[in-house]
Amino acid sequence: MTLSLDALNEASLSDVVAALGAVFEHAPWVADAAAKGRPHATVQALFAGMRAAVEAAPEPSRLALLAGHPELAGRPARAGAIAAESIAEQAAAGLDRLSQPEYARFEALNASYREKFGFPFILCVKRHGRASLLRTFEARLANDAATERATAEAEVFRIAAIRLNALVRGEGALRTTGRISTHVLDTVQGRPACGVAIDLVEWVSATETVLVAQAVTNADGRTDAPLIGGRPVPIATYELRFHIGDHFRQAGLDLAEPPFLDVVPLRFGVADPEGHYHVPLVATPWSYQTYRGS
Amino acid sequence: MTLSLDALNEASLSDVVAALGAVFEHAPWVADAAAKGRPHATVQALFAGMRAAVEAAPEPSRLALLAGHPELAGRPARAGAIAAESIAEQAAAGLDRLSQPEYARFEALNASYREKFGFPFILCVKRHGRASLLRTFEARLANDAATERATAEAEVFRIAAIRLNALVRGEGALRTTGRISTHVLDTVQGRPACGVAIDLVEWVSATETVLVAQAVTNADGRTDAPLIGGRPVPIATYELRFHIGDHFRQAGLDLAEPPFLDVVPLRFGVADPEGHYHVPLVATPWSYQTYRGS
Amino acid sequence: MTLSLDALNEASLSDVVAALGAVFEHAPWVADAAAKGRPHATVQALFAGMRAAVEAAPEPSRLALLAGHPELAGRPARAGAIAAESIAEQAAAGLDRLSQPEYARFEALNASYREKFGFPFILCVKRHGRASLLRTFEARLANDAATERATAEAEVFRIAAIRLNALVRGEGALRTTGRISTHVLDTVQGRPACGVAIDLVEWVSATETVLVAQAVTNADGRTDAPLIGGRPVPIATYELRFHIGDHFRQAGLDLAEPPFLDVVPLRFGVADPEGHYHVPLVATPWSYQTYRGS
Amino acid sequence: MTLSLDALNEASLSDVVAALGAVFEHAPWVADAAAKGRPHATVQALFAGMRAAVEAAPEPSRLALLAGHPELAGRPARAGAIAAESIAEQAAAGLDRLSQPEYARFEALNASYREKFGFPFILCVKRHGRASLLRTFEARLANDAATERATAEAEVFRIAAIRLNALVRGEGALRTTGRISTHVLDTVQGRPACGVAIDLVEWVSATETVLVAQAVTNADGRTDAPLIGGRPVPIATYELRFHIGDHFRQAGLDLAEPPFLDVVPLRFGVADPEGHYHVPLVATPWSYQTYRGS
Repeated sequence: MTLSLDALNEASLSDVVAALGAVFEHAPWVADAAAKGRPHATVQALFAGMRAAVEAAPEPSRLALLAGHPELAGRPARAGAIAAESIAEQAAAGLDRLSQPEYARFEALNASYREKFGFPFILCVKRHGRASLLRTFEARLANDAATERATAEAEVFRIAAIRLNALVRGEGALRTTGRISTHVLDTVQGRPACGVAIDLVEWVSATETVLVAQAVTNADGRTDAPLIGGRPVPIATYELRFHIGDHFRQAGLDLAEPPFLDVVPLRFGVADPEGHYHVPLVATPWSYQTYRGS
Repeated sequence: MTLSLDALNEASLSDVVAALGAVFEHAPWVADAAAKGRPHATVQALFAGMRAAVEAAPEPSRLALLAGHPELAGRPARAGAIAAESIAEQAAAGLDRLSQPEYARFEALNASYREKFGFPFILCVKRHGRASLLRTFEARLANDAATERATAEAEVFRIAAIRLNALVRGEGALRTTGRISTHVLDTVQGRPACGVAIDLVEWVSATETVLVAQAVTNADGRTDAPLIGGRPVPIATYELRFHIGDHFRQAGLDLAEPPFLDVVPLRFGVADPEGHYHVPLVATPWSYQTYRGS
Repeated sequence: MTLSLDALNEASLSDVVAALGAVFEHAPWVADAAAKGRPHATVQALFAGMRAAVEAAPEPSRLALLAGHPELAGRPARAGAIAAESIAEQAAAGLDRLSQPEYARFEALNASYREKFGFPFILCVKRHGRASLLRTFEARLANDAATERATAEAEVFRIAAIRLNALVRGEGALRTTGRISTHVLDTVQGRPACGVAIDLVEWVSATETVLVAQAVTNADGRTDAPLIGGRPVPIATYELRFHIGDHFRQAGLDLAEPPFLDVVPLRFGVADPEGHYHVPLVATPWSYQTYRGS
Repeated sequence: MTLSLDALNEASLSDVVAALGAVFEHAPWVADAAAKGRPHATVQALFAGMRAAVEAAPEPSRLALLAGHPELAGRPARAGAIAAESIAEQAAAGLDRLSQPEYARFEALNASYREKFGFPFILCVKRHGRASLLRTFEARLANDAATERATAEAEVFRIAAIRLNALVRGEGALRTTGRISTHVLDTVQGRPACGVAIDLVEWVSATETVLVAQAVTNADGRTDAPLIGGRPVPIATYELRFHIGDHFRQAGLDLAEPPFLDVVPLRFGVADPEGHYHVPLVATPWSYQTYRGS
């Protein structure tokens, strides 16, 4: 359920804390402090208030905020003993479906991390595919304490920004979403390719891919909605697969068997979860091109 | 061992039959008849003589020629009781490494085919990947007797042409080879991309690929030799994989992690085993294009 | 001055005729007849009423409607003795600035046409560049009487549709406009090319071009408005000229003198004045591509 | 008439000087000195000998070598009072066909240059189009004496290298030639575009172009010979013009009038006269791309 910013500006202090208390994990005092700065003209201003509250808090509170986060794929997460938001976020990243060796890997990393830094590993999991998540975990384990402390708190703010955007609607929403979109042009006919089936998969490895979305191009050669949109695009490698052979056959062209082009894969990496990845396909039965568009 | 056409034109009849007797399976009479038409100015003329000998032969001989071929992946082939050339050809197509269900599938097709047409299924296996081989087998099983009789004999000629080319060197070689080649251009720098690692795989399905060749581009952005050359290109779907991310990193460009483009797959079908499939990659870190070139 | 369709539906008959009487040249009776069919839910319905009125009119009236049109670049046009709308339309097409030989050519064509068909040559000049205008004139002179009569009346409707759209605003506008637009992508940097100067010229011949529009790309690599929009795109050959060398220099790339690419011309023909010609440029300092997009 | 390097190695000293005395303008002593170092294994070694002779010569001789060159487009050149090689070189660059204002411009530049540096302006004119020639002249006038002295001598060597290559055939020719070549691919049909008419023009300005070469593509989509080859490619802007509309019409495609693509111009700059400018066109009736290939 979302609240309007206007309603929030006029609500009682206790109602605000009830509504926004979970934005910062186990730290309703952040919402409380920000509420005292009302009214906020934009969601960004509200978030800035929360951020300022954290940054003004005494050191033990800031450390407690970090310590209050659950471990990734840890036992409390598996037992359900963590905040509802965290359960959903970790499940969306597939962390509730790890194999036994993968759990073991996470437990080992969690233990090393906690021993080195004294608080759990915190990451905005919505911004990462599984490979990126592990790579980032290992890279951060090598940080010095000061760098990692700052990095962890930055992730806390990223998690909070997404949660706040989901709870409050109003002017000046935070920039927490990216997009993958496409466009298919048929340059034999000089017009958009309509009716082309497209799969988007996360390409984990040559033998492991995860289907993310499927769509069919409309009369303008685009999909009615972005293939990923309204959320961060997890850092990962993706493959768009265009069933372009079927398109040209339906257009009446006489293709060989197998055709030179049948399913065209475009494989690309996403490193900026809040970016717009427009990846068009300009094709004939004998050629194609792609580029990062806009 | 190859003989020169000149030597062949001057050899004794028995030597010619000894040399070329196996070009047509279990039918040295074809070489014998062609030898009587010597001298032949070109390999093509020699082959035309062999072809004419078959076409002039009485019906029982032509049927015996078909009947003399081994079944694909059949028990005699597995027991080694077939011509050495056929063993090598079937092995190259992977027919000696089929799983038990695949053998069973071939045995069932072989039986149906022999029952319907009265001779074994003959196919120039060097011109087919495994999927194409099965697809063709099933399609030909649906032919009427006259069409299939002509098709089978045409395949006998294709097999013979490849064998003859391998045995005799001289003017006017038969056209029995195709090619897969590539070329990588770096349009950030405006020059050939040197040192790019390339894999060529036969793409059987999303989960099964077979490595065919590996190469690294030279200073002209090409591979020193075609990725497939000097033989027919088996009818199949292929994927060229270009390690272009490494190239741009080595050129000093600062790529994100993961880069937008890292390993670029170009997937294409080959329907003409004697054709030249030139499949270039024109790339930047943010775009690429391909086309069937020449 | 435009009227709303609602106002028109409620106006007096004489006011409607005053407002729309000139939509069909010297034929206010068409507006009168259509007005009697009010209310019209859309501009299209209003136009259908006018069209029906013409098609229901007795033959002499329909012929008089044709005869009431001025000749193209004819003496009455030059003397100003024609409808204000016709003057503006002919001037926009450059017909008021012809050289003496060009006038002579038009006069000869006008005379031949009138002699053959008995009414003046009528063409919706807003849909034609000068070359197309002359080519069309000559082609239509070869028509038989029935074909040309129908063609001429079709042009009357095209002229009327544009005039009506300009006079009446409301639901269901007639489709009388096309567009030329572009988009510049820099695939060295993987983002839209901002600040690129673009010229659009009508390309009459190697030695004669007419500047149509100039623009600079915005942050999205597009122009703020279409280079041609809100009117038919005259049938002609155009050239977009992109100052892409300046763009790459400003991006800090070190270009040779002269650079491989400096001003890139994209030359293309427009045959469908109501079409959308989206002609993007995807470029590096060493490559570019274009296609008809959407 | 060319001599073989072998013959030269065995000729009498006076014959060598007779043959090569004009390689360095009015300086047969250079040939004489190099001849004394015979035998030379390669043309490059012979040239290195000549270069060493110049660099070892006393200052007055080196200055005299510079002073012995004719002015560009100067009166002696017009009167024919300069070396035959210089006459031909200046004529090939169009310097014998300048307009009166252009002659005046050259005379002014020549006078300023001689006054500043004490010797005539020397440039290997075969490496420059007219715009580049003037641009270079003006730029060099701004040099300091030492830089310009070195630059002038470097040009003397460039002129000599081209003359030597033209006189002597043998191993290790000097690198004095560049190339403009092209290749046309039709990606509707997936094969080379055969029979496409191509013009190459030097693009001096929007209103002044000079036809350099014309050709028609062969079955491989290439021209039988490079459009420029066997000589330096003059530094200039060029335009390749491909009559691609005619190609697609002849292939049976139904194009609009005017077609979207008819004559496609590719405009590009050449800054490296000894480089290979391969400028292909990959086209459909609705798209095309080019890049600097190899």
